Amino acid sequence: MRKIAALAGALTAIGPAAHAQETPPAPMETLAAVSPALHAYTQDDLFGSVWGNESLSPRDRSLLTVAALIARSESEGLAQYLDYAVDNGVTAAELSETITHLAFYAGWQNAMKAAAAAADVFAARGVTADELPAAEPADMLPLDQEVEDQRQSFVQERFGNVSQGVVDNTEQLLFLDLWQRPALAPRDRSLVTVSALIATGKVEQVTFHLNRAMDNGLTKEEASAALAHLAFYAGWPNIFSAMPVVKEVFDSREG
Amino acid sequence: MRKIAALAGALTAIGPAAHAQETPPAPMETLAAVSPALHAYTQDDLFGSVWGNESLSPRDRSLLTVAALIARSESEGLAQYLDYAVDNGVTAAELSETITHLAFYAGWQNAMKAAAAAADVFAARGVTADELPAAEPADMLPLDQEVEDQRQSFVQERFGNVSQGVVDNTEQLLFLDLWQRPALAPRDRSLVTVSALIATGKVEQVTFHLNRAMDNGLTKEEASAALAHLAFYAGWPNIFSAMPVVKEVFDSREG
Amino acid sequence: MRKIAALAGALTAIGPAAHAQETPPAPMETLAAVSPALHAYTQDDLFGSVWGNESLSPRDRSLLTVAALIARSESEGLAQYLDYAVDNGVTAAELSETITHLAFYAGWQNAMKAAAAAADVFAARGVTADELPAAEPADMLPLDQEVEDQRQSFVQERFGNVSQGVVDNTEQLLFLDLWQRPALAPRDRSLVTVSALIATGKVEQVTFHLNRAMDNGLTKEEASAALAHLAFYAGWPNIFSAMPVVKEVFDSREG
Repeated sequence: MRKIAALAGALTAIGPAAHAQETPPAPMETLAAVSPALHAYTQDDLFGSVWGNESLSPRDRSLLTVAALIARSESEGLAQYLDYAVDNGVTAAELSETITHLAFYAGWQNAMKAAAAAADVFAARGVTADELPAAEPADMLPLDQEVEDQRQSFVQERFGNVSQGVVDNTEQLLFLDLWQRPALAPRDRSLVTVSALIATGKVEQVTFHLNRAMDNGLTKEEASAALAHLAFYAGWPNIFSAMPVVKEVFDSREG
Repeated sequence: MRKIAALAGALTAIGPAAHAQETPPAPMETLAAVSPALHAYTQDDLFGSVWGNESLSPRDRSLLTVAALIARSESEGLAQYLDYAVDNGVTAAELSETITHLAFYAGWQNAMKAAAAAADVFAARGVTADELPAAEPADMLPLDQEVEDQRQSFVQERFGNVSQGVVDNTEQLLFLDLWQRPALAPRDRSLVTVSALIATGKVEQVTFHLNRAMDNGLTKEEASAALAHLAFYAGWPNIFSAMPVVKEVFDSREG
Repeated sequence: MRKIAALAGALTAIGPAAHAQETPPAPMETLAAVSPALHAYTQDDLFGSVWGNESLSPRDRSLLTVAALIARSESEGLAQYLDYAVDNGVTAAELSETITHLAFYAGWQNAMKAAAAAADVFAARGVTADELPAAEPADMLPLDQEVEDQRQSFVQERFGNVSQGVVDNTEQLLFLDLWQRPALAPRDRSLVTVSALIATGKVEQVTFHLNRAMDNGLTKEEASAALAHLAFYAGWPNIFSAMPVVKEVFDSREG
């Protein structure tokens, strides 16, 4: 809690695209000079009640936030949130892999922007090349062939005659490659995917990916807390658009 | 009309994130050097016919535009539009409160960016701290308890088992606090909310918030004119996605 | 293929908003220093297999990409992609007109940002004023009055009582003016429109505009390949949200 309060100044970063080691972020005083109310909501509610709430670990909150900012093209403050993620226990390797993952799930240029922000953070922290996930890992995660066969035949049947190129790339690049990379635990990979989907209003894919996240170990309580956290970074409307879909997923997994 | 034409140069602001007092925005000549047609549409249609049309006051047009740009993360030109809003009768206090409001409705980082732009405008105009809405106002607006009870029990029943955190924050932070702050008239608060929703394609929430806006005094004629205005800043597709929902709201309130 | 590889360094442009002649884009090495895997996917898959795939011409790929980046507010790397578009056979006049077109279909400020990027590219390439499309062309394209009457009466009947201003501007500015401008072939104008719609998740308008694109000469094979290309720039979720709609359009035009 004390650490969060101390970091609040850095995390608001309301100035133009601050880079970790060079430009100090605009202080909370700038925010107070425009809106004392928003300053108070930020300090007391967002960095107080929300980040301090134990329903979700600081590490998960950092993964959710970083994924939401990258997916929403919000590079302002991203370097600070990446830096804070490392404080919260996300490794540089996991951040690297999160950016790689989001290239596919949030558009290539958003990942390029995120890589620029991460390059500064990594340099400032002295992250070396051997700490990063390899382009071609020696071992991939074990594949659940049955689950993948089911996914692939569903997509092939439904969309093969729409774009075989999309169907093939989805199989070869995403589900037989990206998702099998060991640099991010499947549960965390699912968490950043769901965050990106909700933060950009892609509710149509939430059913598949939230189910996958929960199959990968995300609990219902964590998913509930993630919605409350994301409301601040994605805006309330994206959360209320996602809630009916999340409700359906929760209901379908019960009883 | 003459004032609008004179301001056109400043409002196009096609250069990178211009700040009020430092970097002059790229002149209309730069736009003309890329597209004489877009220069003409901007000058004649957008700043001529649209901003000059009396179906909506310049003050409302400024509120709509500022909300759309903030919600869409479009910081380029935002300082100029904030400055122009003050010319059109939006007070610094109202702009401050609009930014605070949109933190919740358009994502925290968009409000942080907007605060950075507003800080420059406020400094250039010599806005002092005592002109800004207090973090904790002495008096809140009177609450319509019946309307709020209805909203809360609907949300609680529907989404309580999805995320009690979202349901609680929505009640405590939004409807018993933010919406009750006196710094922005409920009708104007609704106007910027509806603008943000339409400008970011969140049509699912338009039914609730357009009804609320009209309950708060927005006329059908103003809502119609707002759509025509927003088409330029949000893009035609967002307007055509919103129109069926707006139609339903209009129809449901008639006869 | 060799040219694509040589351009890869410039096209990743992961640094902050690079401008053609001044700031060299961050080299691929920066990307490799954050994610060797993303570097490999970019080099081998995106700039290798995708851009090199003959199912779609490099010119079409450039039009699709430029439209997606503009519509998604992604100015990072945009100057490089505009420059590369000229290499691939898109004329400065066509880029100018694409930006003009997207002001209406992706929001005015996105076009303003794109104009700033294009101004640099045009200056570096020595593009002169007489190469640009005139604000008021001597000859407009022939209008298919029957098709336009049908569109207009559908929109008038459905939305006239929602916002006559939108209905009128849609007819006067878009379908009797913008779409009739000769500076961009109708098939290409449709291509950038469909790209912008898919890249920003406006699937509701894809049915109308993909049908129009195919009426204007876009083949089913090209549309399929466009989806596979756009997946990288718009993110997989936007493609999977568009596919059911594209499927319906394809199905409705067969048999």
